Amino acid sequence: MRAVVVRRGEREPTVVEQPRPEPAPDEALVRMLRVGVDGTDREVVRGAHGGFPSGADEMVLGHEAVGVVADANGTDLTEGAVVVPTVRTPAAGGDRSWFERDEADMAPWGSGDFHERGIAGADGYMAEYVACPAPSLVRLPPEQAGDGFLVEPLSIAVKALEHAEAARSAFDWQPESAMVLGNGSLGLLALGLLDADSRFDRLYCLGRRDRPDPTLDVVDGLGATYVDSRETPVETVADVHEPMDLVFEATGYARHAVETVHALAAGGVGALLGVPEDWQFEVEGGHLHRELVLNNKALVGSVNSNRRHLAAASSRLASLPGWLVDRVVTGVYPPDQLDAAFTDDDTTIKTAVELNEYEER
Amino acid sequence: MRAVVVRRGEREPTVVEQPRPEPAPDEALVRMLRVGVDGTDREVVRGAHGGFPSGADEMVLGHEAVGVVADANGTDLTEGAVVVPTVRTPAAGGDRSWFERDEADMAPWGSGDFHERGIAGADGYMAEYVACPAPSLVRLPPEQAGDGFLVEPLSIAVKALEHAEAARSAFDWQPESAMVLGNGSLGLLALGLLDADSRFDRLYCLGRRDRPDPTLDVVDGLGATYVDSRETPVETVADVHEPMDLVFEATGYARHAVETVHALAAGGVGALLGVPEDWQFEVEGGHLHRELVLNNKALVGSVNSNRRHLAAASSRLASLPGWLVDRVVTGVYPPDQLDAAFTDDDTTIKTAVELNEYEER
Repeated sequence: MRAVVVRRGEREPTVVEQPRPEPAPDEALVRMLRVGVDGTDREVVRGAHGGFPSGADEMVLGHEAVGVVADANGTDLTEGAVVVPTVRTPAAGGDRSWFERDEADMAPWGSGDFHERGIAGADGYMAEYVACPAPSLVRLPPEQAGDGFLVEPLSIAVKALEHAEAARSAFDWQPESAMVLGNGSLGLLALGLLDADSRFDRLYCLGRRDRPDPTLDVVDGLGATYVDSRETPVETVADVHEPMDLVFEATGYARHAVETVHALAAGGVGALLGVPEDWQFEVEGGHLHRELVLNNKALVGSVNSNRRHLAAASSRLASLPGWLVDRVVTGVYPPDQLDAAFTDDDTTIKTAVELNEYEER
Repeated sequence: MRAVVVRRGEREPTVVEQPRPEPAPDEALVRMLRVGVDGTDREVVRGAHGGFPSGADEMVLGHEAVGVVADANGTDLTEGAVVVPTVRTPAAGGDRSWFERDEADMAPWGSGDFHERGIAGADGYMAEYVACPAPSLVRLPPEQAGDGFLVEPLSIAVKALEHAEAARSAFDWQPESAMVLGNGSLGLLALGLLDADSRFDRLYCLGRRDRPDPTLDVVDGLGATYVDSRETPVETVADVHEPMDLVFEATGYARHAVETVHALAAGGVGALLGVPEDWQFEVEGGHLHRELVLNNKALVGSVNSNRRHLAAASSRLASLPGWLVDRVVTGVYPPDQLDAAFTDDDTTIKTAVELNEYEER
């Protein structure tokens, strides 16, 4: 079977032939349909994030997958069911309690308790067939066999928004305004989720693009206000537009984590999702601290997602407008067009690699 | 009657004679028993925080009060009831909805929607009699006529811990370790609350004092580990001791807001309560942002408290060990000993001014 890998020392993905895996006990064999490509994959390819499986010189890429159960292998999965796998699976010798209570998304980074498939420590999902632990698979409706690779990135936003909301649950939070920092696929999907939440009357999306631009078309289509960070830096947004009840940071630009505090309204919350490199810089630390305290503001970091978030994301995907999904997915390519699938330019938003076609039973 | 005021241009409190106030409709007259002194009061006295009532050249001090209803004035309060007043009361022309739903503690700073009595915009409670809006008064059990001035500072900690807990309510948070930054009266009261919470097996308190010291005696008495920040800076605590599930910052030292992130365990939360001056400094911003995200950490700022927090604080006060209260309250002084009441040295933890004695009915 074909698999898309990155090899040690190389900086681009390659298609290789591998034997079809044999599922171990408690694993099911999944026939992969489509696997999305995101910024993390590109970082993995260029060696800036993640790491190879122990002792291996190549790793199968891909963590945003949708597939079909090809062989339930004695597990309680249904053959033919459309599924999305969690990104984290247990690492040998690690603490399994995170998985047992379905909170592997909360496990300490670097703990050795989990792999992130296709990112760090274990092969990913960009192969024709993948053996997956049965508990890592969440069932999707068959209608999501095509767009189901969006469930994992959506689940990242679902979890972050859930944690942000929880952080405001000790009082009667009545949010109306929200700003997404970043107009990449994750930012646009988050904007779609916020648009579907009737509490948010006014949405903003911050980027640094010139029109015409396909991401700004999505921002416009959702009725959100585009904020060009080259003209309106994050720390001026509260004055230029309005203080935000919620900020969703999806840029990985470390200054934004700090500036988010100043963009928030009293009682507001910033959900941070970016993963920046090391960067030392000056901050107005006194002002930052004071703003957090005197205006009851909160910052909540969020990474990964669990089965519950994947299930919720599937529901949310079903209610997103079709035009949004169509606009966000700018290309689905076969494995022999990896260049196109991994391209990141101003015309691409979200791409996927199609390993197999879905055949309805 | 006597009142303790600070006058414009002066840097120390003074006892003055004032007419006994006449309660307006919807106000009750409260005969004040004791009013605590804290760091905010000292900042108000030296002009570093707060502001005089509009058009006034002096302000009655004090916001941590316990009193007795002397004249219910047609409100539904009970004469003779022991009460604690909220610090925030409505400002003329402001948005009253915060008060109507008892969330004035969440109102925007500087909004003009509230005064903070004895701090900014309105006379405080350090007078023999004070007219208080009936909804600002929360009933205490008569046993708290003596220590009830601790209810307000305790309520500040209760609220902050409640918001911190809420911020972790989107997953199965199982905290075991907590560190309080600051060994002032607020820090020690928070440590007492955490000690009473059976989930926290291991408590730490950070300060910069040498033994023998009365605050460290309290830390020891609670079985907490004293962390001397001169030897063990906050950012090294996770390595030297352990990563903390909860950090309660009560120092107003702006670097601590940042360093708290590094002291936290995965899934941990920092409650920030300090109100620092402006201070620009360098931070490892990339590391900070990444730690928040990859380890699902949260920071929650918290200020003030509402009626619900005051009622909860009264319950919590009732269950704190008597020795703790006795140790924390280092002096209760009559108005003619203001020097002693407002002293802040290494022998004082929490002091109060006694305006009237409690006479049980």
